[in-house]
Amino acid sequence: MAPAAITPESSGTTTPTTQSASALTQAGIKHALPETHAPLDASKITHTYTTTPRAVPAPDSDETKSQKTCTDHMVTARWTIESGWETPELKPYGPLSIMPSASVLHYATECFEGLKLYRGYDGKLRLFRVRKNCERMLRSARRIALPDFEPSELEKMIVALCATDGEKWLPKERAGHFLYIRPTFIGTDAALGVQRPREALLYVIIACFPDMTKSLPSPPALNGSAANGAAEKKASSGLKLLASNEDTIRAWPGGFGYAKLGANYGPSLVAQGEARARGFDQVLWLFGKECYVTEAGASNFFIVWRTKEGKLQLVTAPLEERIILEGVTRASILDLAKTRLSKSVNDLESLEVVEHRFTMEDLLSAQSEGRLIEAFAAGTAFFVAPVGKIHFRGKDVEIPMAEGDSGAYAKLIKSWLVSIMYGKEDHEWGVVVEEKGVPQ
Amino acid sequence: MAPAAITPESSGTTTPTTQSASALTQAGIKHALPETHAPLDASKITHTYTTTPRAVPAPDSDETKSQKTCTDHMVTARWTIESGWETPELKPYGPLSIMPSASVLHYATECFEGLKLYRGYDGKLRLFRVRKNCERMLRSARRIALPDFEPSELEKMIVALCATDGEKWLPKERAGHFLYIRPTFIGTDAALGVQRPREALLYVIIACFPDMTKSLPSPPALNGSAANGAAEKKASSGLKLLASNEDTIRAWPGGFGYAKLGANYGPSLVAQGEARARGFDQVLWLFGKECYVTEAGASNFFIVWRTKEGKLQLVTAPLEERIILEGVTRASILDLAKTRLSKSVNDLESLEVVEHRFTMEDLLSAQSEGRLIEAFAAGTAFFVAPVGKIHFRGKDVEIPMAEGDSGAYAKLIKSWLVSIMYGKEDHEWGVVVEEKGVPQ
Repeated sequence: MAPAAITPESSGTTTPTTQSASALTQAGIKHALPETHAPLDASKITHTYTTTPRAVPAPDSDETKSQKTCTDHMVTARWTIESGWETPELKPYGPLSIMPSASVLHYATECFEGLKLYRGYDGKLRLFRVRKNCERMLRSARRIALPDFEPSELEKMIVALCATDGEKWLPKERAGHFLYIRPTFIGTDAALGVQRPREALLYVIIACFPDMTKSLPSPPALNGSAANGAAEKKASSGLKLLASNEDTIRAWPGGFGYAKLGANYGPSLVAQGEARARGFDQVLWLFGKECYVTEAGASNFFIVWRTKEGKLQLVTAPLEERIILEGVTRASILDLAKTRLSKSVNDLESLEVVEHRFTMEDLLSAQSEGRLIEAFAAGTAFFVAPVGKIHFRGKDVEIPMAEGDSGAYAKLIKSWLVSIMYGKEDHEWGVVVEEKGVPQ
Repeated sequence: MAPAAITPESSGTTTPTTQSASALTQAGIKHALPETHAPLDASKITHTYTTTPRAVPAPDSDETKSQKTCTDHMVTARWTIESGWETPELKPYGPLSIMPSASVLHYATECFEGLKLYRGYDGKLRLFRVRKNCERMLRSARRIALPDFEPSELEKMIVALCATDGEKWLPKERAGHFLYIRPTFIGTDAALGVQRPREALLYVIIACFPDMTKSLPSPPALNGSAANGAAEKKASSGLKLLASNEDTIRAWPGGFGYAKLGANYGPSLVAQGEARARGFDQVLWLFGKECYVTEAGASNFFIVWRTKEGKLQLVTAPLEERIILEGVTRASILDLAKTRLSKSVNDLESLEVVEHRFTMEDLLSAQSEGRLIEAFAAGTAFFVAPVGKIHFRGKDVEIPMAEGDSGAYAKLIKSWLVSIMYGKEDHEWGVVVEEKGVPQ
């Protein structure tokens, strides 16, 4: 793959670009793998099909809501420091054999991606900007000392799995539905030394997830009927967020908040569990004495407000400090808003798109002065989720929702994304997957 | 077990105490497990012995240096949210079967401990303050949303494994040698939701480690002949540390630096790898614009200096901000220094023991004014490792070593610890393990 543009890792751009591993290296980022070692090559992928295919659960079943059911197959690729990448294998989904001393179990040498496979209203299967996920996966791998790979090869592994399992697990009659794809990369080195893993496993699995397009999305953490109830509740009132306390910080400059590392997620579960127990959907992560607003749960956070000078703005936290995840949904929302909301649409006033820091104090004064228009969280799992309430230091802050169950801008932007994802609009971000199924 | 004293999790005490899970709960820390669920009970442990026993590698063999060889058995205990703890099993060491969607592989729901089994010069096997490791494991588990257990039960699991494998893997003729014990706790929940694990596995393995008592210790990250070479080099010159840059920090207030989570280790590997590539042994982790000195690699860091007022002090970073690992070796060194160095010993001047913040600037001015006496890193893997050089912002800072290959205080404190660990001195910190072996 020839890169269309070379973008340094830290630029924080939201312009769609593609990056190869070598382009990232040229941009000053170190290459973990000597050039003499075998590169990841998904063109050679081998296929071993399951002999015990499983039944596909109904979209609204408890089984789907449990998020425990994966499709019939997975794709794996093993790497060793001695010889580089082995040939990727598509094979039956099943348990991994991992030594008790494996690096991933002790030192969290792991990173992952989350994206979806969509069944379009035109009958086609689509991925959404899959290359961006693969490029971010490489950046995450580098942060956690896992080896390099060409992002386009990971994309081929994802496409191969979708092409095999998509037809059965997301059939044509389920237009408007999706499956959840989880590329994962783990250090499998079976030695207790605290060191860069000398063996690793890159794999892709696909899970059945509850349908979040009919009601407002429920966070992926909720299970079974609880998820359903929460989604129904949220459909009327939006997400309820609990602002974090100073004694719990998700990420820090010089840390790794920008990368999709396991190390960013596990340590947030206690605060998240406490928020749930108190009736909130997610934690709104603040940073510093100033209470800068950073992320909501594992999603990016946006507000629409009018500045004191009267400008209408869509605002989200910037990437420069590297404490914010560089979300694909985030980048897409910023791009769409910049291109489509620079003039008024459907009676909605045009707005300015800005990535800059803002504090809870800024948000509170906008709310009390009637300048706060709406707020929403956005990410692959949550999609675009309107926020109805924020609890901060003992008091509830009500967030306006012009459309009753959503702000007007969140609703419009969401509809644009849905059109691209499900093929109502032909757009370069929607990548069609050619279905192959399992040979009979 | 009745707690001898109740110490809140955040007190930062270094006084030896014991803590039960319920004592921690009384001290205001939430209990993750409803009381109705089965508690961890190691008195019921089942034994299944290997039918394919392996050969024990020689202490200085490449196999031992690789840190890849574990003993014949391991102990595991499974937990589920539905029924609590299952009966612990002692069984043959071997791979774990882990689902690709397991929590630990995605969200780093993992914590561990590191301690050693020592073969005493009196022929007995000993653990060193094992209860403190088990108590810290519970604190780590709570930080990473893993379930509670009674620390004394984990201790019994450790003792059972040592009693079974100690006789063969650390035979009586290897007095002065040790094995490395790694209790590990992972979230095994096979669901992709970002949530507290609903299944978990607590296990204990024992690895062969290179002998670090004859030469100065080599960090556990080094392998094979490289480790050996580094150890020999260090025997004459001490550890060379590379001070971290502002763009890489290990831990932050409100984070989880105090807990032994995988999430503290993987993200440090890139900086550590760069330090190694530049010829340093470890990173000296600084924090903040002020460059507070926090830890060395994965070890605590100590200096002996004379204050401007002329007081001789042993200084290490305090625990209050919770960015420092509450090391068992750290606590033991502070205790020994307080009790045995409050008056002069072997012509060595008495000193004051203080836990407070100090910056690189403080250290540099002490060095340039001739007030810096010595520095050393301390932890289970490193043990007590004299520091010979620190590289900070482009210049090398030479650290005095009064005894040639060590500072005098590090040497004395190390000798005290060795006496306790290997049974030269009868001390409550040395816990004798009764050997049972494998029934014939």
